Amino acid sequence: MAIDLRSDTVTRPTADMRRVMAEAEVGDDVYGEDPSVRALEEYAAGLLGHEAAVFVPSGTMGNFCALRASAEIGTEVIADAEAHIVTYELGGLAALGGVQTRTLPGLAGPLDLAELAAQIRPRSAPKTYNMVPTSVVAVENTQARAGGRIWPLDRLERLRAITDDAGVVLHCDGARIWNAAVGLGVEPRRLGQLFGTLSVCLSKGLGAPVGSLVVGDAEHIDRARVWRKRLGGGMRQAGVLAAAGLYALRHHLDRLADDHRHAAELAATLADAAPGRVEPKLVETNMIFVAVRDAESFAARAAARGVLVGTAGPTSLRLLTHLDVGDDDIRTAGDVLARLLAAEAVHATAGDPR
Amino acid sequence: MAIDLRSDTVTRPTADMRRVMAEAEVGDDVYGEDPSVRALEEYAAGLLGHEAAVFVPSGTMGNFCALRASAEIGTEVIADAEAHIVTYELGGLAALGGVQTRTLPGLAGPLDLAELAAQIRPRSAPKTYNMVPTSVVAVENTQARAGGRIWPLDRLERLRAITDDAGVVLHCDGARIWNAAVGLGVEPRRLGQLFGTLSVCLSKGLGAPVGSLVVGDAEHIDRARVWRKRLGGGMRQAGVLAAAGLYALRHHLDRLADDHRHAAELAATLADAAPGRVEPKLVETNMIFVAVRDAESFAARAAARGVLVGTAGPTSLRLLTHLDVGDDDIRTAGDVLARLLAAEAVHATAGDPR
Amino acid sequence: MAIDLRSDTVTRPTADMRRVMAEAEVGDDVYGEDPSVRALEEYAAGLLGHEAAVFVPSGTMGNFCALRASAEIGTEVIADAEAHIVTYELGGLAALGGVQTRTLPGLAGPLDLAELAAQIRPRSAPKTYNMVPTSVVAVENTQARAGGRIWPLDRLERLRAITDDAGVVLHCDGARIWNAAVGLGVEPRRLGQLFGTLSVCLSKGLGAPVGSLVVGDAEHIDRARVWRKRLGGGMRQAGVLAAAGLYALRHHLDRLADDHRHAAELAATLADAAPGRVEPKLVETNMIFVAVRDAESFAARAAARGVLVGTAGPTSLRLLTHLDVGDDDIRTAGDVLARLLAAEAVHATAGDPR
Amino acid sequence: MAIDLRSDTVTRPTADMRRVMAEAEVGDDVYGEDPSVRALEEYAAGLLGHEAAVFVPSGTMGNFCALRASAEIGTEVIADAEAHIVTYELGGLAALGGVQTRTLPGLAGPLDLAELAAQIRPRSAPKTYNMVPTSVVAVENTQARAGGRIWPLDRLERLRAITDDAGVVLHCDGARIWNAAVGLGVEPRRLGQLFGTLSVCLSKGLGAPVGSLVVGDAEHIDRARVWRKRLGGGMRQAGVLAAAGLYALRHHLDRLADDHRHAAELAATLADAAPGRVEPKLVETNMIFVAVRDAESFAARAAARGVLVGTAGPTSLRLLTHLDVGDDDIRTAGDVLARLLAAEAVHATAGDPR
Repeated sequence: MAIDLRSDTVTRPTADMRRVMAEAEVGDDVYGEDPSVRALEEYAAGLLGHEAAVFVPSGTMGNFCALRASAEIGTEVIADAEAHIVTYELGGLAALGGVQTRTLPGLAGPLDLAELAAQIRPRSAPKTYNMVPTSVVAVENTQARAGGRIWPLDRLERLRAITDDAGVVLHCDGARIWNAAVGLGVEPRRLGQLFGTLSVCLSKGLGAPVGSLVVGDAEHIDRARVWRKRLGGGMRQAGVLAAAGLYALRHHLDRLADDHRHAAELAATLADAAPGRVEPKLVETNMIFVAVRDAESFAARAAARGVLVGTAGPTSLRLLTHLDVGDDDIRTAGDVLARLLAAEAVHATAGDPR
Repeated sequence: MAIDLRSDTVTRPTADMRRVMAEAEVGDDVYGEDPSVRALEEYAAGLLGHEAAVFVPSGTMGNFCALRASAEIGTEVIADAEAHIVTYELGGLAALGGVQTRTLPGLAGPLDLAELAAQIRPRSAPKTYNMVPTSVVAVENTQARAGGRIWPLDRLERLRAITDDAGVVLHCDGARIWNAAVGLGVEPRRLGQLFGTLSVCLSKGLGAPVGSLVVGDAEHIDRARVWRKRLGGGMRQAGVLAAAGLYALRHHLDRLADDHRHAAELAATLADAAPGRVEPKLVETNMIFVAVRDAESFAARAAARGVLVGTAGPTSLRLLTHLDVGDDDIRTAGDVLARLLAAEAVHATAGDPR
Repeated sequence: MAIDLRSDTVTRPTADMRRVMAEAEVGDDVYGEDPSVRALEEYAAGLLGHEAAVFVPSGTMGNFCALRASAEIGTEVIADAEAHIVTYELGGLAALGGVQTRTLPGLAGPLDLAELAAQIRPRSAPKTYNMVPTSVVAVENTQARAGGRIWPLDRLERLRAITDDAGVVLHCDGARIWNAAVGLGVEPRRLGQLFGTLSVCLSKGLGAPVGSLVVGDAEHIDRARVWRKRLGGGMRQAGVLAAAGLYALRHHLDRLADDHRHAAELAATLADAAPGRVEPKLVETNMIFVAVRDAESFAARAAARGVLVGTAGPTSLRLLTHLDVGDDDIRTAGDVLARLLAAEAVHATAGDPR
Repeated sequence: MAIDLRSDTVTRPTADMRRVMAEAEVGDDVYGEDPSVRALEEYAAGLLGHEAAVFVPSGTMGNFCALRASAEIGTEVIADAEAHIVTYELGGLAALGGVQTRTLPGLAGPLDLAELAAQIRPRSAPKTYNMVPTSVVAVENTQARAGGRIWPLDRLERLRAITDDAGVVLHCDGARIWNAAVGLGVEPRRLGQLFGTLSVCLSKGLGAPVGSLVVGDAEHIDRARVWRKRLGGGMRQAGVLAAAGLYALRHHLDRLADDHRHAAELAATLADAAPGRVEPKLVETNMIFVAVRDAESFAARAAARGVLVGTAGPTSLRLLTHLDVGDDDIRTAGDVLARLLAAEAVHATAGDPR
């Protein structure tokens, strides 16, 4: 069987996880009666230091429901120009939600936060300026298109002070917030409390089969529930999924450190074999970008040798470590990819996701 | 434990169903790699006589994806004025999809089909009329707000001829298409082939925990997949759910006849006890409407006696039979409800869902 | 020059109207500084018995701004199945505004108002019904697709009582409200006060070149102004248009009686010539429907003889009388059309707009 | 009467312009029969080197119709982070049109065009990247939030090569394209041909009372017309406005040089009086930004002295010269504002629009 580094979403539920799913107590969650879903929602809210949570089928839906719970029509969401929400969600925030996005490159860095602050258009501005008000600033932590990098904690704290001042909501696309917490060595709550709302994922590094959560105060979560229903995200006996999610939160959080160690090892191997193609210093969590001449054909060559890799652009590979990739897999993958890289004559900029 | 007649969505997965879920082969369905999801999609498409299908988390999403796959912005969907899509889906077709609905009462009957035909505005109309063209006629089978009644087969056939003539898609909100097929005593394919697209549900009478399917030709299903992704309905290892759905389609379809028999028995009991409150002749599948003086308080009194019933309006109860309601439950529920009905002095119109 | 009966929108400004336009005092209306626009808005609001008004470029925009000022996303507007807002406005309420329409045939009649009342879904309904709430009931007066017929005053009054009871807004698409008032022989205020909001037109029977008004209380009009701006309906020195509109309201209102007399005469002529093709009793204002074998080719034959007529469907002509059609024109048009009708051998149902 | 420097939109039609309006030949433009509108559309299309044009009531509607004619739902428009379309149009592109915006600061400069090119996501990208494709790059010329600065011609040419390569449309928000052409000393056609579509304004420097035009090839303009109709921008006898617009294009284009000269003089006066508050080198057309301590109160003080100024942010004034501001007015305004500036003790950064 191939070593699959395309994404950390490809993990399959473990035997223990399947057992809790098979035994899960369930009910009709559309009526709010699924005990496993409620247990998951309460546990996740508490873990992140918030009042309430709602279970949704995907991170895309989680971001939409969270953002639309804060951003009315006629307002704008500020995000990084490379954010997942403007890159990989099929334009849903505008298409389905009617909300404008205004993007700035380098939101996580190196953009100067004073420049960001100047771009926020407070609702309290005198009417003469007549501008579209900013309702939300959305960050992504870790940042997928920046190679899984973590927002520095002090930068986040300063950003929260800025959004508080301006009276706008700070949202976190926390698809990999767990990797950020483990990478920083802090409790999830420490990160969670820095945000007004979060969308967090159970089916990436944590290894649950399906699901994300929107986390925030009760009022936002109530509104998010209405949007979930409108989008068709209300599921009936969702407890079978929620039970897996709860198990993952309880048992798979700490082990993300293994994924990070694996990523660091693999990055070092590839940097040795092909200097300049990988920048190990940028590998802070479970993601590695590798510069190649032609990503599509490189991926095909690797697949033929039993290693599946993702592409992040015409000349960029993306590798993710996860629950289903062990120590031996990392060594094997390192061998295969190092050899393929060495065979390429091209010089390219390391770590550029495009 | 209470006898729950509020909806057929409240069924819990059986032990066998849980076993197949625990053993399901899974993969990342966002990459199209979950074998259980693919198996379910192929089986359901075949069962309904269509080319392709896509698994979605709910019937609401199924209807949206199917309708939006046919109806562009600037066109209209014609539906019954009481259809689920304009009653219980939070206005999503317009709110998220930008598509106009134009409704007609009595689409399933008694509306004369010639009147419906006259309301369709073909795309081929001369530009001088300058009207919003009709892209879809949507029917619901069985019809929830009409008490689970079945579209007569010959009426459907005539309708399909009309929509074909006009060049518009005939869509079926088939949340309970299985009840219609069993009620008519025909193969699902016989019904399925009458429609251009269907949204069908696995988590109602069939008893699977979560999920619906959009069914149609490959082109529509490809477009439906894009909308599913945009809505956030793409799930990762959805095979655990799909396996339950496939099991339900294979093992729970024929037994819907039991639910129909139960509903008929219960309706007869209540009609005997309180003539005029229930119209047994209207009970064609697994749903019963009961006229009461005050639905909310009646439901509370019944719940206190161990029978949960739904409300469909201020003076209307809705009862559904399903997998988790056995022969004894029906007798017990009949006793409880008959006594409560007899205790009411009010006279109300039977079977009116409002 | 041809006699143009296609629509009452084709009128050209009179010499006097052009003079007031040329002399109009203007300012920048986006800043609220155009004195002619303000004068028109105040005059129209007063004339219709309301607090405020806002000038918009068209009736389509007027309806949208009025409806969207009352109807939020997730609510529905109830209207006649043949209403202009669902027939001729390119689906904008859903496409641009995300608001669902639910339609009922015969809203102006013969639909029983109790049936309408039963269809309204009050916001105050217990959450258990979980229905899309109705925010607006929209009527059209006069009704274009019903041949310019007038809502009976007592029916409107009963409808207003119903909408008040249900807590929903009663909106009037009053493109030809002036014809209704003149036809009923009442002051416009008498009609205007029956509605929560109105959209009324200056460029139909009144003969102004461009413009409509949304009329209502200050709060609705403030919200309508925001939507006008978002749609791009904010105009700068709009006073040149507003002056014409004000002139029209002051000088062309009473003369609509001439248009009605002309329509009655023409209908009588055609009914004599071709019994059954026109139903004179249905001609209440300035509009006549005529049943023909093929509307497109009939219109071409009439045009060749100097009479322009509109088509309302494959076998239906629509004729409108207006400011630019005099007594002689009516006689000439009557001759031409009577002869063409007599030449047709077909029998068709009178007055059917389709 | 006050000297009004708030905007170039405040101009009132001249006597000659009013005369042509009063004499304009008109028809029903919704039927495409207004000869003055058609003459304007043809003249403007030719002037800018394009095939077709459509008259709309405002620049906001012009931008929307042009962008929506190219950008389908699920695609994105790239624009400057300070562009009018994301700042002053109430979020309409997303709210009404469902189209995502992705913004980059410094699009007109100093952003490196290679960085922009890297941000474009071509439709032709391999499906594996799964990104929202870019349909349009929108520039603004002159740029309002950058103080009316002109895009360098060679930068535009390089940008067009980039968008052609990527297969995306280059749109120009040309509200003040005429100022750009006059400022560069080139024919409008020279600029117009660099773009796939333009929205250009008649009611700013040109002095017509109302209206903008969308310009492009026939296919785009046909689609823009449908959106205009849906937005409610179809006007009846719009020829009275179009005649003014045509007159303005024929007679007021060259005189924009006077406005530019006036702006340069005024900027020099203010820079002399209060060094650092105004940056004369940035004044390329008819717009001046002035840094002040408190924009609202400064504007009030100036108004009390007969000079109206606009505010562009809490500490930024915006002054525009135009048709209704003569040589003497410029001297008077310079005196008044210089004195008020000198009276302020604050030091602020010159020319920052925020």
